[in-house]
Amino acid sequence: MKHIDKVADMAAVSGRLASEEKSIGFVPTMGYLHEGHLALVEEARKENDIVIMSIFVNPAQFGPGEDFDSYPRDLERDAALAEKAGVDILFHPSPEEMYPQKSDIRIMPGKQADVLCGASRPGHFDGVLKVITKLFHLTRPERAYFGQKDAQQLAIIETFVRDYNFPVEIRRVPTVREKDGLAKSSRNVRLTPAERQEAPSIYEALRKGSRMLRETGDADRALKIVRDGLALIPGGKTDYAEILEYPSLRPLTAESQEAIVAAAVQFSGARLIDNILVAMDDKTC
Amino acid sequence: MKHIDKVADMAAVSGRLASEEKSIGFVPTMGYLHEGHLALVEEARKENDIVIMSIFVNPAQFGPGEDFDSYPRDLERDAALAEKAGVDILFHPSPEEMYPQKSDIRIMPGKQADVLCGASRPGHFDGVLKVITKLFHLTRPERAYFGQKDAQQLAIIETFVRDYNFPVEIRRVPTVREKDGLAKSSRNVRLTPAERQEAPSIYEALRKGSRMLRETGDADRALKIVRDGLALIPGGKTDYAEILEYPSLRPLTAESQEAIVAAAVQFSGARLIDNILVAMDDKTC
Repeated sequence: MKHIDKVADMAAVSGRLASEEKSIGFVPTMGYLHEGHLALVEEARKENDIVIMSIFVNPAQFGPGEDFDSYPRDLERDAALAEKAGVDILFHPSPEEMYPQKSDIRIMPGKQADVLCGASRPGHFDGVLKVITKLFHLTRPERAYFGQKDAQQLAIIETFVRDYNFPVEIRRVPTVREKDGLAKSSRNVRLTPAERQEAPSIYEALRKGSRMLRETGDADRALKIVRDGLALIPGGKTDYAEILEYPSLRPLTAESQEAIVAAAVQFSGARLIDNILVAMDDKTC
Repeated sequence: MKHIDKVADMAAVSGRLASEEKSIGFVPTMGYLHEGHLALVEEARKENDIVIMSIFVNPAQFGPGEDFDSYPRDLERDAALAEKAGVDILFHPSPEEMYPQKSDIRIMPGKQADVLCGASRPGHFDGVLKVITKLFHLTRPERAYFGQKDAQQLAIIETFVRDYNFPVEIRRVPTVREKDGLAKSSRNVRLTPAERQEAPSIYEALRKGSRMLRETGDADRALKIVRDGLALIPGGKTDYAEILEYPSLRPLTAESQEAIVAAAVQFSGARLIDNILVAMDDKTC
């Protein structure tokens, strides 16, 4: 596995690969890898000649008071996991490499960014679109792999890629979970033992709500079930619980084909998110 | 010369060329070609295997009340000129092809867009960055060619390409002029005969101001000369006349290495812009 930490080197290598007719699969991450990331690599490995993974904790997508400084990092362990999973090139630039000068050109996502996580993280998705644009330009992938767990990020990136004609195919990969249902996340290590016991209740509440939505099509009742379930978590405060059309993230209508049932819960040392997608097309008959 | 009018076809062709190790030179235009555009093709022809020209009058960069509908168009004549100049692929999509759905993801240029033309054309450079991003992604050029005449556009695109790591080299091509000094522009056809006689005074005023700036380094005196010269044009109203640092478009300082002396003049049926770049580095000693 090749290590690259300079932007110019990454650009040169991807340019060379593009002209050699090698298909590139790209897995962007913020590191502290878990099985969710490795599932992305596995998919990329199947479909491409070369797999590039980036590890970059992107300051532009953290707000003031958010956990940029305390976000977990372990490059040595990550590199070993990435190599074992079949990554060919690990790109881990410094913030100074990625942002060598102050830039006041911004990419502003639209209304898709005003709901769910975006409602309490103003500017977060601006930062995501900035870094994704830079990383796509530096790695020139044919396909890029994103986890369904960050469903809003995935929806916004899919829209961005479509509206701006990026020559890259976005591949959705299902959320990887612990045995007890908790979605894998780099932030799970910051839960206290008691919180770790309670955290699977997020998925449990989403599952119950999803079942109600699937069976009855009644989003209000389904959402109440989710909220009631989350309210029972002693150590976690519900940040949001919503049911929306996916991937537009607009209110659900009779024409909606897919819905997202999503929640965020704040624990003492970590804010966890999770979601379930529900196919709605069979509700029209 | 190959004609392409579908976005999907353009993406497929550029993808194939990229994998064949063909270098692509890209010349984006709004059509109604003149020698200024052909000078861009000439440069592109020298440096690349394949030259792609786009002709697209981009609705996103015209404001309400601007001349989108009346902007001159003549695809047949343009195609003949492009082919003769050595263009390999002419990409001329419809607005519906380029904007098949409403998109509310915006790219917002920063302070560089608040001066010169940007001051009186709010949102104009948002539209420019949107279409340039789409065109770069669709044509995948190694080099893209821009005229120095649209100096603010060039400065903003250079900054954008740098800050967002586009894998494309931006090439500046000097302004092509009529014998009497008037900068070539597709909008010149909309001048009345009397205005056409007066229009070279724009360049004349910029030249006198530039000479003063070059000889004395005194931007205030230089700017007064420009403004006085423009005020003498009977049929034209000065929209702006400015001297700024280039390409930052910030106020000139003792450290500035290059200055732009720029003006816009509104005639009855056309608003004309022009500029001169002045090297300032020899002023520090």
